[in-house]
Amino acid sequence: MELGMIGLGRMGANMAQRLQRGGVTVTGFDPGEQARAQVLENGIAAVESLQALVQALPAPRVLWLMVPSKVVDATLDALLPLLSPHDVVIDGGNSWYRDSLRRAARCAEQQVGFVDCGTSGGVWGLQEGYCLMIGGETAVVTQLTPLFKALAPAADRGWAHVGPVGAGHFSKMVHNGIEYGMMQAYAEGFALMQKKADLELDLAQVAEVWRHGSVVRSWLLDLSADALKRNPGLAGIAPYVEDSGEGRWTVSEAIELDVPAPVITLSLLERLRSREDNSFTDRMLAAMRNEFGGHAIKPSGGSQ
Amino acid sequence: MELGMIGLGRMGANMAQRLQRGGVTVTGFDPGEQARAQVLENGIAAVESLQALVQALPAPRVLWLMVPSKVVDATLDALLPLLSPHDVVIDGGNSWYRDSLRRAARCAEQQVGFVDCGTSGGVWGLQEGYCLMIGGETAVVTQLTPLFKALAPAADRGWAHVGPVGAGHFSKMVHNGIEYGMMQAYAEGFALMQKKADLELDLAQVAEVWRHGSVVRSWLLDLSADALKRNPGLAGIAPYVEDSGEGRWTVSEAIELDVPAPVITLSLLERLRSREDNSFTDRMLAAMRNEFGGHAIKPSGGSQ
Amino acid sequence: MELGMIGLGRMGANMAQRLQRGGVTVTGFDPGEQARAQVLENGIAAVESLQALVQALPAPRVLWLMVPSKVVDATLDALLPLLSPHDVVIDGGNSWYRDSLRRAARCAEQQVGFVDCGTSGGVWGLQEGYCLMIGGETAVVTQLTPLFKALAPAADRGWAHVGPVGAGHFSKMVHNGIEYGMMQAYAEGFALMQKKADLELDLAQVAEVWRHGSVVRSWLLDLSADALKRNPGLAGIAPYVEDSGEGRWTVSEAIELDVPAPVITLSLLERLRSREDNSFTDRMLAAMRNEFGGHAIKPSGGSQ
Amino acid sequence: MELGMIGLGRMGANMAQRLQRGGVTVTGFDPGEQARAQVLENGIAAVESLQALVQALPAPRVLWLMVPSKVVDATLDALLPLLSPHDVVIDGGNSWYRDSLRRAARCAEQQVGFVDCGTSGGVWGLQEGYCLMIGGETAVVTQLTPLFKALAPAADRGWAHVGPVGAGHFSKMVHNGIEYGMMQAYAEGFALMQKKADLELDLAQVAEVWRHGSVVRSWLLDLSADALKRNPGLAGIAPYVEDSGEGRWTVSEAIELDVPAPVITLSLLERLRSREDNSFTDRMLAAMRNEFGGHAIKPSGGSQ
Repeated sequence: MELGMIGLGRMGANMAQRLQRGGVTVTGFDPGEQARAQVLENGIAAVESLQALVQALPAPRVLWLMVPSKVVDATLDALLPLLSPHDVVIDGGNSWYRDSLRRAARCAEQQVGFVDCGTSGGVWGLQEGYCLMIGGETAVVTQLTPLFKALAPAADRGWAHVGPVGAGHFSKMVHNGIEYGMMQAYAEGFALMQKKADLELDLAQVAEVWRHGSVVRSWLLDLSADALKRNPGLAGIAPYVEDSGEGRWTVSEAIELDVPAPVITLSLLERLRSREDNSFTDRMLAAMRNEFGGHAIKPSGGSQ
Repeated sequence: MELGMIGLGRMGANMAQRLQRGGVTVTGFDPGEQARAQVLENGIAAVESLQALVQALPAPRVLWLMVPSKVVDATLDALLPLLSPHDVVIDGGNSWYRDSLRRAARCAEQQVGFVDCGTSGGVWGLQEGYCLMIGGETAVVTQLTPLFKALAPAADRGWAHVGPVGAGHFSKMVHNGIEYGMMQAYAEGFALMQKKADLELDLAQVAEVWRHGSVVRSWLLDLSADALKRNPGLAGIAPYVEDSGEGRWTVSEAIELDVPAPVITLSLLERLRSREDNSFTDRMLAAMRNEFGGHAIKPSGGSQ
Repeated sequence: MELGMIGLGRMGANMAQRLQRGGVTVTGFDPGEQARAQVLENGIAAVESLQALVQALPAPRVLWLMVPSKVVDATLDALLPLLSPHDVVIDGGNSWYRDSLRRAARCAEQQVGFVDCGTSGGVWGLQEGYCLMIGGETAVVTQLTPLFKALAPAADRGWAHVGPVGAGHFSKMVHNGIEYGMMQAYAEGFALMQKKADLELDLAQVAEVWRHGSVVRSWLLDLSADALKRNPGLAGIAPYVEDSGEGRWTVSEAIELDVPAPVITLSLLERLRSREDNSFTDRMLAAMRNEFGGHAIKPSGGSQ
Repeated sequence: MELGMIGLGRMGANMAQRLQRGGVTVTGFDPGEQARAQVLENGIAAVESLQALVQALPAPRVLWLMVPSKVVDATLDALLPLLSPHDVVIDGGNSWYRDSLRRAARCAEQQVGFVDCGTSGGVWGLQEGYCLMIGGETAVVTQLTPLFKALAPAADRGWAHVGPVGAGHFSKMVHNGIEYGMMQAYAEGFALMQKKADLELDLAQVAEVWRHGSVVRSWLLDLSADALKRNPGLAGIAPYVEDSGEGRWTVSEAIELDVPAPVITLSLLERLRSREDNSFTDRMLAAMRNEFGGHAIKPSGGSQ
């Protein structure tokens, strides 16, 4: 099978490599020269334009988008005029499932198939395989089976056609919401043990022992154990946590569907909180306390 | 009526003054010379020892404790040997209601009455009157009525005998828990308006307009409007919020009684959060993200 | 001054009455015959169509919309073709401020002024006056001053021009978010006192005493005291709490602006939770506990 | 090595069996005849009294307590008079670490060693091994090594001497707090997918696919996938979630140490919430909404 990979960043380049290893012939495209050079080193063809990519592929073409969610529309703008009926576009990135529904409709207007494929696995996917949640029409998805088998941890697991278009990105969105909650739970627990100074717990040791036989064993714990082993005090790391769109979408979707998801929601808010500088909320609280109770205000700039 | 006020800090001194204005003869005691000097300026007698205080009062004596909760037991240790049956001790501070139950039992052993009086009003109480939640035996509380009428905003409101010993401090504890939640709600709302920079909302103006006719009008809003008027950007105030015991007791009591109180609980946790330096939780999250996604870690010390 | 009130439901009818009492000549319109009949009883003219309303008003016309947020666009569709340059439309309902920005642009295309007026006060507004947060161009808002003076609790307070178009509905949205948080804080506190059965606290009494001199005194507390006085056990009331759009918008806006607002957010989620039937989340938790711990599952339908 | 197992419930009986399989000679004691009979069937000796147990063991004796946390003190009351210097008591149950500190001191008075061993693994431990977090003095713990190797998933992993007395139960407490948070995160995510009815997601399928290669793969997910496979709609399971002490202790400890742990805390509160019947909080909210907005109250007993 042949496939065009659009976007040769960390994810796209690794996936191209795993696909090729799995017997898929991949041609890559990325506007960046360096990105193209790097995949070439791994024996994957890379072309300099979407036109060249489309021409390099046999019809019906299969194009896998692995680009930031905010440039998916622009990429489709450039790509769709080059495609023919029965070609298929797979969006493997972290797009909002509602955008995917809209994009599928747009592709359908010119009989181009559209598949939304939620992809999990991060930088470990090349080695361990990617978990794939696939949304799309059965006929379209079925013909792509060899791709999913090559990318997944094994031919028969770690990938599934979970529903119609939208279902792939929806379930990936929820996956990431859960991920936020799990991460926050672990982080709070380790912080509590770290603060309990008199017991002198060795966090890396505790993480390691929990990996075997405990109820909380997980891949995130494996990674946590590694991180704590290398850097037990987490020195040099700022308490600053980014978030990407999926957490926000999960929170928003849950509210829209009247599903209370307090833990996933709080996990997102804690990330916002981690990035706050000079919180107005907290200053307002300090000001109010001073108003009614005459409680001293801590002057800003004072040592904490 | 005569009363001995033990503890002439900001609260005790103000209450002594309001009592005296209301026709109660007050003798104060405080170990601090300056505290005694200050009440003397306001025409209130102040003595240098508990012995002197007890001797200065006619039997049965009424002693009002207005001391930090952590020295109540020590004060009782010193005071109880000096008292006689039918004397009454009122704890007007922010004690844990379970301590009050224990202390009432201790007083009862020598036939000394005990009343727990939750007191709200802060630095404004002298001028506006104190809200008093009173716990104790009816016979004991009834004889103290003139005190409560003098302290409250008016003779017939703002004070109540709410139940047996413990009920006063329990309801004051809940009062403070609610206070945490209300403050946090306002603070979050003002922070949101402050962040919505393109609308250039004048927070003092919004607070002022809400004071009249809105659903959220309250005394805390009156104070917020004052604070924002004087210092619209809350300049010079650190985002650092103290908490006293009542919030913690409320959270703990709610859990013990199986009552989910998420908003009061979160309000307490937000205060803890405001005082955190270099959160281990957040560093752990950043470390995990780096592990699985190769997401860049923000180095500590970097500008945020 | 003359004004056309569109929408004669509870809010519109009351506001029409307060305006008329304040010297404004009001003509009302509502598609419902009964609604029209009711305002007529209060001496307010009511017409049967938007056309009739527009014709009844002197130019430049002032139209006040007091309709559900979901029919504002349809109302503008019907109304705008009837209007002339310099007429003004005021949206006094709970619209999303982003819709107001869009609608203002639409009105501007035909030189019709647009003002977004956040209105608080509920069913008590007729008697106590409405709190008005007004967004719009200064020239437009200024000419409407007599209206705001008539509606507000007093001519010089309870109303303010808080910013450009959008600022009125934005600040009203935040107002309601704060309201959610305050209500939840009170409700949790009262629930905790109710559960502490051995102290036999009289919730109506506690609410009443807090109204005078306490830190938590507020209008919502006044209402709570009334409600508890009439129905101390809250008998006959289902634990089912509706929410309207403002809470959701506040949560969503806070996340979009990276402002952590955990208490307002949780307050919304608690309302969703109150309306849940047979929570899948909780069943999933029970199922998981059974899987790893062999903990008994409570069969559905069993008594709790 | 020989060991006396006190408490032959599900956990104790399974652990006795795994120990015996691992070459440890186990004598069991349980006051229940049936419990004793069951371990006998598995080839483990069981005696009828603590006296008999103590006599059956060679000195220095090793006694493993696997009893409910609330009967540990009573068990020690009965056991300690029977023991001699250098005997060792291991508490393998879910005791509060502060109780363990107290009990260790009590044992030390008569030169009896004390080890607190947090034990995770649930009903799967017999087959997969138990994760053991061990607190105690090094000399005491070291001599018990054969026991831990037999119980753990493998001789060299899944068990660790994590610190002094208290460290075992403290880290187990945190483990369970994390467990609460993880479970809640998964449960919310599955509930969200279940509610998104138009995508017709097959939850068992999604859980299964996530088990391979995804960021959220874990043992709890393995169990969730099993549960959903057997009962996709979670039919017959009430939305009622118990909690044991560890979650409460974690929340309380975090607050005492000024560590904000919002997700673990909320996860506990959600369990309380799941067991609430006719929430007073929610009725209070409904009553307030009715007071200020005239919003209809849903009568109790009405269908929801």
